Amino acid sequence: MKELRVLHIGLGAIGLEVAKLVSKKSGLRTVGASDLVKYVGEDFGEVLGVGKTGVKVSSDYRRVLKEVKPDLVLHATSSYLQDVYEQIVDCVKAGANVISTCEELSYPYRKHPSLAKNLDHLAKEYRVRVLGTGVNPGFLMDTLVLLLTAVCQEVYSIVVERVIDASHRREAFQRKIGAALTEAEFKGKMAAKEISGHVGLEESIALIGDAMGWVVERIEAEQPEPIIASKEVSSPYYTISAGRVAGLQQTARGFVDGKERITLVFKAYVGAEDEYDRIHILGNPEVHQTIKPAIQGDRATAAVVVNSIWPLMKCRPGLRTMKDLQTLSFR
Amino acid sequence: MKELRVLHIGLGAIGLEVAKLVSKKSGLRTVGASDLVKYVGEDFGEVLGVGKTGVKVSSDYRRVLKEVKPDLVLHATSSYLQDVYEQIVDCVKAGANVISTCEELSYPYRKHPSLAKNLDHLAKEYRVRVLGTGVNPGFLMDTLVLLLTAVCQEVYSIVVERVIDASHRREAFQRKIGAALTEAEFKGKMAAKEISGHVGLEESIALIGDAMGWVVERIEAEQPEPIIASKEVSSPYYTISAGRVAGLQQTARGFVDGKERITLVFKAYVGAEDEYDRIHILGNPEVHQTIKPAIQGDRATAAVVVNSIWPLMKCRPGLRTMKDLQTLSFR
Repeated sequence: MKELRVLHIGLGAIGLEVAKLVSKKSGLRTVGASDLVKYVGEDFGEVLGVGKTGVKVSSDYRRVLKEVKPDLVLHATSSYLQDVYEQIVDCVKAGANVISTCEELSYPYRKHPSLAKNLDHLAKEYRVRVLGTGVNPGFLMDTLVLLLTAVCQEVYSIVVERVIDASHRREAFQRKIGAALTEAEFKGKMAAKEISGHVGLEESIALIGDAMGWVVERIEAEQPEPIIASKEVSSPYYTISAGRVAGLQQTARGFVDGKERITLVFKAYVGAEDEYDRIHILGNPEVHQTIKPAIQGDRATAAVVVNSIWPLMKCRPGLRTMKDLQTLSFR
Repeated sequence: MKELRVLHIGLGAIGLEVAKLVSKKSGLRTVGASDLVKYVGEDFGEVLGVGKTGVKVSSDYRRVLKEVKPDLVLHATSSYLQDVYEQIVDCVKAGANVISTCEELSYPYRKHPSLAKNLDHLAKEYRVRVLGTGVNPGFLMDTLVLLLTAVCQEVYSIVVERVIDASHRREAFQRKIGAALTEAEFKGKMAAKEISGHVGLEESIALIGDAMGWVVERIEAEQPEPIIASKEVSSPYYTISAGRVAGLQQTARGFVDGKERITLVFKAYVGAEDEYDRIHILGNPEVHQTIKPAIQGDRATAAVVVNSIWPLMKCRPGLRTMKDLQTLSFR
């Protein structure tokens, strides 16, 4: 395949991790970078620590789209489809394929059916592909689960659990899960939507159901609940005394034929001693899988995004989800 | 998609398990069954225990191919490509897609490049797809490994281990791994090719390398070694006294850039107390995965074969391998 010319939109921690990986891969060339506020005017190669490249960071992605006409946009600005919809539409209309870490884009048909339909039509019209992915949603709680069901003649129910020690994660992540707040502050910020918890459990359930041909009648997604530190715990950013919030847990349940058949449990807190990704498939035969320690999220998200590029380019144009891609792998 | 008309060739334990599963699936209809010796003349529905279907088992698959003109042949006769090549050619020339549990067909390009090339050409000419798959090779030591590498920015090396307690497996499997023989008998039968051990490790290594873009210069596949019972162990078929063969182990190693980078270890013996499937990926980030207990092989092979049908039918015609299919799942 010919070299792909890549534009990076969104230069937060994830966007930079993706761009660093792109800089190491043959077949990909970064031709543009854009962020509303960060690194504007700087040489993007220097931002990445790979030496001057002549690619200047611009705050105006629309202008860059016109100037560089990228084959592919790697996009990492927000978790919510409504926030990124216009950006993705702009990319598609500029003739660029798009892979975004926007969590809601990983399976937008359920929460945002009309936006999803529009994006799909538009992508087909402009003959490009649009995909939302990352490690979660996009991999650990959906794609990997799906592949494991392939050994089953029957599947009765699926339980997936991701438990991560937030101590190793960046400060923004720890803030997002409410680390070091009091329980009252946590509830206040949650009500005010200042902290969100993990976005993507509903998308993962919907993707699993769709791929397996299960009609998921209802998804119950609990509000994130605080996990309270039972003793003092600390991370590079916070010291959390006993009784304060160490992180959060949230559960989502998918109902098929009136029964809870897909259950996803996410826990992220500072000081988690036992970190793992676990999948239980009750079926014939059963599958009980553990990945331990849990997969490092930021590095894995960048890997999943970049490793999805070539399989996505083989897909027909349109809005795609992870179930449409050839079996992903490192390449 | 329209209903697929299925012909089963090879009615051993695996062929029957596949056919039983097909009988439960919508979108698939069994229109023929053939075995050289087993169940010839019987009603195949009665053989499967699903009631009379009017499909008579024939010893002449060529005649059945002509009579029923199946869309798809599910084939389970031998582990070796040279043994099944003519059968598959016959199916392809009859216009049928083929999924076979022939282990060597799971990735035939390395051991049998000219047979593979011929099959690919022929399948394209007749506009059908040919795939070799099963739980191993086909899933546990290749497809699943590949998917797990997708979270990695770098992969340095891969170690996969499958340890199974042969007590639960059928008698033919236990015989194949030398259960209850003396060590001398084991070595004699191995030299005489009366027992084979597991076929597929080389194919799995080659498939992994191909999908990841690694040039595997050399694959070292050790001869199977007996595992000696340290105390009396038993299965429904054998009682094995201490000092006799309980089963076997074998290792295959793939070398890339002069280094051992893919290592597959297979152990199957009566009385294994710790049964698991394990994958270690040394990379960035690392992945350490355990499935425990190990996946039940026969049931899973039937599942992988049947769950591969729809993804395979979406592929372009030709000889395909598991890396070409959309992410597999139960359906």
